[in-house]
Formats: sequence, structure tokens, C-alpha cells
Amino acid sequence: MAVVNTARPNVTLTTDLGLEDNYVGIVKGVITALNHRAHIIDISHTVPPFAVTAGRYLLETAYRSFPPGTVHVAVVDPGVGTARDAVVIETDDYFFVGPDNGLFSFLAKGDISGVTAITRRKYLAREITPTFHGRDIFAPVAGFLTLGIAPAEFGPPRKSLVDLPSARTRMKNGDFIGGVIYIDHFGNLVTSLQGELLPAADLLVFVNDIQVGRLRKTFGSVPVGRPVCYVNSFGYVEIAVREGSAARHFGVDYDSKAQILIAPL
Amino acid sequence: MAVVNTARPNVTLTTDLGLEDNYVGIVKGVITALNHRAHIIDISHTVPPFAVTAGRYLLETAYRSFPPGTVHVAVVDPGVGTARDAVVIETDDYFFVGPDNGLFSFLAKGDISGVTAITRRKYLAREITPTFHGRDIFAPVAGFLTLGIAPAEFGPPRKSLVDLPSARTRMKNGDFIGGVIYIDHFGNLVTSLQGELLPAADLLVFVNDIQVGRLRKTFGSVPVGRPVCYVNSFGYVEIAVREGSAARHFGVDYDSKAQILIAPL
Amino acid sequence: MAVVNTARPNVTLTTDLGLEDNYVGIVKGVITALNHRAHIIDISHTVPPFAVTAGRYLLETAYRSFPPGTVHVAVVDPGVGTARDAVVIETDDYFFVGPDNGLFSFLAKGDISGVTAITRRKYLAREITPTFHGRDIFAPVAGFLTLGIAPAEFGPPRKSLVDLPSARTRMKNGDFIGGVIYIDHFGNLVTSLQGELLPAADLLVFVNDIQVGRLRKTFGSVPVGRPVCYVNSFGYVEIAVREGSAARHFGVDYDSKAQILIAPL
Repeated sequence: MAVVNTARPNVTLTTDLGLEDNYVGIVKGVITALNHRAHIIDISHTVPPFAVTAGRYLLETAYRSFPPGTVHVAVVDPGVGTARDAVVIETDDYFFVGPDNGLFSFLAKGDISGVTAITRRKYLAREITPTFHGRDIFAPVAGFLTLGIAPAEFGPPRKSLVDLPSARTRMKNGDFIGGVIYIDHFGNLVTSLQGELLPAADLLVFVNDIQVGRLRKTFGSVPVGRPVCYVNSFGYVEIAVREGSAARHFGVDYDSKAQILIAPL
Repeated sequence: MAVVNTARPNVTLTTDLGLEDNYVGIVKGVITALNHRAHIIDISHTVPPFAVTAGRYLLETAYRSFPPGTVHVAVVDPGVGTARDAVVIETDDYFFVGPDNGLFSFLAKGDISGVTAITRRKYLAREITPTFHGRDIFAPVAGFLTLGIAPAEFGPPRKSLVDLPSARTRMKNGDFIGGVIYIDHFGNLVTSLQGELLPAADLLVFVNDIQVGRLRKTFGSVPVGRPVCYVNSFGYVEIAVREGSAARHFGVDYDSKAQILIAPL
Repeated sequence: MAVVNTARPNVTLTTDLGLEDNYVGIVKGVITALNHRAHIIDISHTVPPFAVTAGRYLLETAYRSFPPGTVHVAVVDPGVGTARDAVVIETDDYFFVGPDNGLFSFLAKGDISGVTAITRRKYLAREITPTFHGRDIFAPVAGFLTLGIAPAEFGPPRKSLVDLPSARTRMKNGDFIGGVIYIDHFGNLVTSLQGELLPAADLLVFVNDIQVGRLRKTFGSVPVGRPVCYVNSFGYVEIAVREGSAARHFGVDYDSKAQILIAPL
């Protein structure tokens, strides 16, 4: 069971609200107005709008760097205003707050000690607008959690979370096949293939049947402008172009559903 | 009369300083050096340079989400180095610090309990550079306010604030006419027309005589790529394109002075 | 000798990690997990990748705005994974943590009271990935410094820092010659020429032999779209275009190695 450090509670934010407008500031204001001790840290606010898979990757690879008791709020929510639930999820170490649309589907069933549907209006904004649940639902719930309110206070228990179909590792004739789950600001392509599941043999990497090269242990050692493939600092196979953009080099974006193939040499 | 929470004083920042350079960090450093308890929250730093109207909208729609006693610093200041005043404004709940150029003209006269012109050098940087009043004037004043220094300490009282002419709702033959006051990072067009002032009847919305469609209660329900019009979460009529940019769709930017017209059906 | 304020220790971050991904949030998570009192302030995360000179300028012109005892972390690190050292630098007032690649070469030798090479694994992440030293080395060291761990604990002393060759003021036939060391988000060109080293006479400024105009005391007074030259708020000669971009106007970027010349009239 996760326990908030009420003397100095931590809240993280992962959203597609962007940094240009006042949305993020308002979310922080609402949390701060409920609990002036809350310490709020941005994970990212530039998740591509509607890219739930990208938001999931950013949260999955960041949340364990925070101290136990942290409340992780994530709002990438193409379904805002529709029938998806708002939930609180509890694990041994953390709380998660956000829409139940697959954003939290990186959590293994065994890790989850409870899911609560957020329904009790007394903890939410008096008026809930259809377009800004970050302010009206998720920020207040996060604020009350940091005050020590138990998840069960916010509504009835839920049995399970929505899963999110995504590019997953599969094997075919000894090859490993996956997709692109995230494109970082350098244009590096993060794939769904995890380094620890690959054999120790020499491996060749392909993007849409174009050869990238051998999977290397580290980043360096290719000339400027050339592609390189390695296991990134979060354990995923990543394709980069040295001092360039792999997304541009291979013509890959979130919509292009690129196929990544790794074959033993 | 606003009272700072000196145990955990909150300061917000709304500026056009941008996120690329070190200007915002320096402003925070100056405030922190004066008061290590200060809790500083960004509202936005990407107000378009010189767009005082956009800065006013961002602050107007955000400031009430913060706890009473918050010091709101706003610096969108095309007149830096010219004759405009620097001011502290006090309301029942908040302090505002910034240039007197219309940025704070969303405050009703009845809400303002005092305006002070910032003139006393003892609270400011030893040297005041002509280009960085955020560091040299506004940050120090905010820092001292969070320590409990009364606004009157900073200089003489002022009777009134500069007003900012802007697109305002007017009626003509039963139609409501306004303009675009803000363009958010999705390209949504926020208009000067407030939802609560419109009749309950069915209404048609036009941008520069191009029909957008009926004013809807909620965002959803139009196909991808189509424009939609609704009252946003701050109460203003807003024009969006589903999963697209209304600014691009209608060819509108801050300089184009688009006319928004709402007509009963 | 710098002393951390352990009741409310300040940490600043100057990096090229960008604001889009989760890298900065993770660095903050690691520091917070080590010390929940740490107060972390962003100086900039959009230093152009590999532009050590730009990072040096941003830190050089910001660090003194922070209270004594602040731990300044800077990570602009094209050599990550290669043989460059990771260091802690101590001055009378501050600590600096980062790669020893010239990023801290604005510190005069006389200001430095000690340099430590970071080698002791017990203070670092269990696994040090080749691509994310911000998380695995620099964040943990910063966290432990804020807890009062002495720099000497992290490894052996170092005699000196790597210097960074850069465009420096030189004189030729009475003219002052320098280069562009930073381009801000307005497109203003910051030059290596410091205002206090120039004579009080009337001076003409040139970019690549194109005349910019006279060096002025203040920013204002040129028409919109025209270039103007002045000493910026950090003491450096800067070239701007009023309500425009000097970088575009003069065709200057980080790679173009523009020559700046200032000649007495």
C-alpha cells in the first residue's frame, strides 16, 4: 500500500496540455490551493495530442525515479467528455490518477493493489466543464490524495483497467518484430522491443525493410549523419541518427506505423 | 486586503520571456535569493512578444485557481525602457506586479483595493538595465511582497490603471460581434464573446463571414478536420477544428483582426 | 567555501535534454528521491545539442542570481560515454556539477577553491547507462551535495578544468573583433565582446562586414524591422532587430562563425 509523505508530498504531471497556454499552471494552482505543501514536478506536457501510447511510454519509464508515495497524474485524454472513467490506481509504492484509457496499462496486474472509479462529486470542482478535466477532476483528486484522503473515498472499486493495444514484440521465424512507440525530441525512434528479451547473438536491425545496421552496445562510433541502433537507458531498442533525426531519415512518424525487425546475423 | 502566506508564499509568473533562454530561471533565482520559502509556479512564458492582450487573457483565466495571498507577476512589456509605470495592485485576495500597460485591465475597478507605483530604489536591483525589468524590478518586488512588505512601501499610490482597448462584445441588429483575443497551442481561436452573455436560443457562428456552424454545448460530435464552436472551460466562445488548427483553417493570426459574429438562427 | 542551506537547498539545471521528453522530470525525481527538501529551478533545457559554448553563456550569466550554497548542475555533454571526466567544482559561494568539457570555463582560476573528479560508485546509480549520465551520475551527486556530503567524498581532487576555445575579444589596428556566442529565442545575437572593455567613444558595429549601426546605450529608438546594437543586461554587446530576428536578418547561426567587428568612429 502506498503512503503519501504528507510533510512533503510529491505530485508528477504527464499531459498533452502543452507549455504555451496556462493550462498546466492552472492545474498546479488547483493542487496548491488544496495543499500548500505539495511539490509538483513536470514529467512532460508535450505528449502529442491523442498519443496515449507516447504518454504511456513517458510515464512508464519515469515513474520509478520518484520517491515512494508520489502521486503520478497523467492526462492524455482524447476521450475527454465521453464515457471513459476517471480512476485512481494504487500500487505498493505509488498512486496514479487519470483517465482509464490505457495510459496506465504498463502496470502489471500483480502490481496493482486497487483501482477506484472517481465518482464522488464532493472532491471535484463544483462545475465540471467538458473540456478541462485536468483542472476540474484530476487536480482536485491529486490534491486530496496528498492530504492523505484514501483512494476508496473517491468512489467505488473497479476490477480492471482498460488495456491499450500496441506494437508488441512478437517472433516470426526467429526474427523479432515490433513498432515505434515513441519519438523523442531528437527524432530518435524508440521501439517496442526490449533489450533484455533479445538473444546475446549478433543482431541486424531493419526499419520497414531498410537495414539500420547491427545492434550495438553503446551509442557512439558511427560517423555524423549515419543511423545507429542500441538499447536505450530505459531498456528499449532505439534507433538514432548521429547528430541528426532518425524520424526524418527513415520517414517515420506516429501515424506511419513503421515495422521494426531484428534478425540474428 | 490580500495577505501573503509567509510560511509558504506562492508566486506565479506570466511572461513573454520564452523557455529557451535563462531569463525565467534568473527571475526565479532573484526571488529565491530574497525568500527561500517562495513557491514559484509558471502560468506561461510563451505569451507572443508584445501581445499584451494574450497575456491578459492567460492571467485573467488562471489567477483565481491559486490560493489567496498569491503574488501574480506578469511581464509582457513592449514598453520596457519607456515611460510606462511599474505597479503593484492589491485586491481582496491577490497581489499583482508588472508594467501598467493594460495587462491587468481585466480587474474591475471595484475589485482593486490599491495601486502603487514602484519607485523606491531600495527594493530594486542596484543597477536597473533598460531591457530586463523582470530581473531588476519585478522579481525583487515580488520577493519582498512574499516577505510581508506592504505594497505602500514600494512607492506612492496611483489612482487608476491604464486600460487596454480590445475586441469587446457589441450588438448590432441583434447579432453579437467580437474578435479573437487568444490563439492556443492547438490553434483554437478564443473570442472576446462570453457565453453567459448570449441568449439561450440556437446561434450561428461566423469568422470573417465564413460560417463555422452552430454554437454547441460541448466539444465533441463533429468529424475530424471539421470546425466546431463551443463555450470553453473559462466561459469564452471558442472556435476549434477537431484534431486540427482553427487558426490555419480560417487563416487567422494575432495581426489579422478577425471578426467573430454570432447570430440567432 | 560554499555551504549548502540544508533546510532549503537550491539546485539549478542547465541542460540540452529538451522539454518534450521525460528526461528533465526523471533528473528531478532522482534528486527529490535523495532529498525531499531540494528546491530545483530550471535555467534552461533547450541549449542546442552539442553547443557547449551556448550552455556556458547561459550558466555564466545566470548563476550569480541564485543564493549562496546553490548547487548548479549543467549537462551539455556531446562526449557522454567517452573519456571526459565528471566533476564537482566548488567556489566561495556555489557548487557546480557536470562534465568537464569547458562548460564551466567561465570560472576564473582564482574563484575555484576545489575540483573533484566523480569516481566513487557508491554515490551513483547502480547501473550507469552510456547515454543518460544526467540521471545516473549528475543527479545523484547533486542530491548528495544538498544533503551536506562534502565534494571530496565523490573522488580524487583535480588540478584544473578543461578550457573551451571560443570567440574572444581581440584588438587589431584599434578595432575590436569577436564572434557570436549565443542566439536567444528572439534571434538576438549575443557577441563575445563585453561592454565594459570598450572605449567611451562613438563606435560602429559590423557583422561579417555589414554595418549594423552605432553602439547605443539602450534598446529603443530604431524603426520596426531595423537592426540595433547595445550592451545587453549581462554586459555583452548584443545585436537585435526591432520586433524581428537578427539571426535571420544577418543569416547567422551557430555554425556560421560570424565575425563581429567594432570600430571607433
